[in-house]
Amino acid sequence: MGRVISGITTSLDGYITGPNDGPGRGLGEGGERLHYWVFGGPWSYAEGPRGEATGADKEYLDSAMGNLGAVIGGRGTYEAAEHWGGHNPWPVPFFIVTHRPEEEPHDGEFTFVDGLDAAMEAARAVAGDKDVQVMGGADTIRQALHAGYVEEFTLTIAPVVLGAGKRLFEGFTENLHLEPVRVLQSPFATHITYRVAR
Amino acid sequence: MGRVISGITTSLDGYITGPNDGPGRGLGEGGERLHYWVFGGPWSYAEGPRGEATGADKEYLDSAMGNLGAVIGGRGTYEAAEHWGGHNPWPVPFFIVTHRPEEEPHDGEFTFVDGLDAAMEAARAVAGDKDVQVMGGADTIRQALHAGYVEEFTLTIAPVVLGAGKRLFEGFTENLHLEPVRVLQSPFATHITYRVAR
Repeated sequence: MGRVISGITTSLDGYITGPNDGPGRGLGEGGERLHYWVFGGPWSYAEGPRGEATGADKEYLDSAMGNLGAVIGGRGTYEAAEHWGGHNPWPVPFFIVTHRPEEEPHDGEFTFVDGLDAAMEAARAVAGDKDVQVMGGADTIRQALHAGYVEEFTLTIAPVVLGAGKRLFEGFTENLHLEPVRVLQSPFATHITYRVAR
Repeated sequence: MGRVISGITTSLDGYITGPNDGPGRGLGEGGERLHYWVFGGPWSYAEGPRGEATGADKEYLDSAMGNLGAVIGGRGTYEAAEHWGGHNPWPVPFFIVTHRPEEEPHDGEFTFVDGLDAAMEAARAVAGDKDVQVMGGADTIRQALHAGYVEEFTLTIAPVVLGAGKRLFEGFTENLHLEPVRVLQSPFATHITYRVAR
């Protein structure tokens, strides 16, 4: 069976978005800086992304994508991303965790699933010996960490203090032991990968 | 003139102590794990530290100590550390930021200074072309970041999610741009050093 992996980008102060994120406002005020690493440097919502990940950032992306079999995302992320224009952005099946699975579009781009446990079961089944990636948002990652699903977690830290926004670990009150596996650093991000102890 | 540097250890969820830290309770419940890297592995308040930093952890410590001229710490840290048994733990002058400088012990081990600005001025004067280290606690580091004193900041992340405690960036609402300088990783910590943009 493949692994369950997860990763998300935060600021130094632990925010996964700046203030006022949402549809049309992406990762919120200043939030573009969280994802400079994804696009090879500065970009803005006004002008749109320009390039691609390079160097250590590409190395991390390639490692996360190398054995990908399925992706799980939360409904909030799906909405904030404006449904990725109606097209699954991943080259593998994409499961959206939602309380309203009946709202799934009929074109087969996304599979809506009622709850994380059901999404995990479906994703594992389709992934086989490939990895299931829990991409976020924060609430979905917290649920997956809480349930003990995540075997490898990558904390990507963008070199910015945002001062406000949504915290990755908001309301998460558990103790977790992790084991550093590797670290990659570019001018735009530091990617720390951990094995999560069970 | 030397640089002003700062560094502190947090959990993945951004806590510099576990719950219930303070005199006799050090870094709080589970907080020992934050500092495994300082002592080369697991230790507890009950049994006390055993070893020394090794490998990447020693490399980071050596780099931080290599050109040290003075250290600044907050009164809360001084009290939580139980005055380090009455002896300055650093090989250089140690300035304690406090609203009650008249409470300075008379043996010359520590210099009590009223406020961060005054501490910075005194520390820079004695450090000359060596570095001033702002060691913490969190409030003192936040003040130093806010005032724009810190030129290089090292975020040391211990591989643990604590779920509660004191947050490094609690109440800090500013935006800061940083520039990654280097990263060092051991089984016990990841040390990310940033240049702080002015």
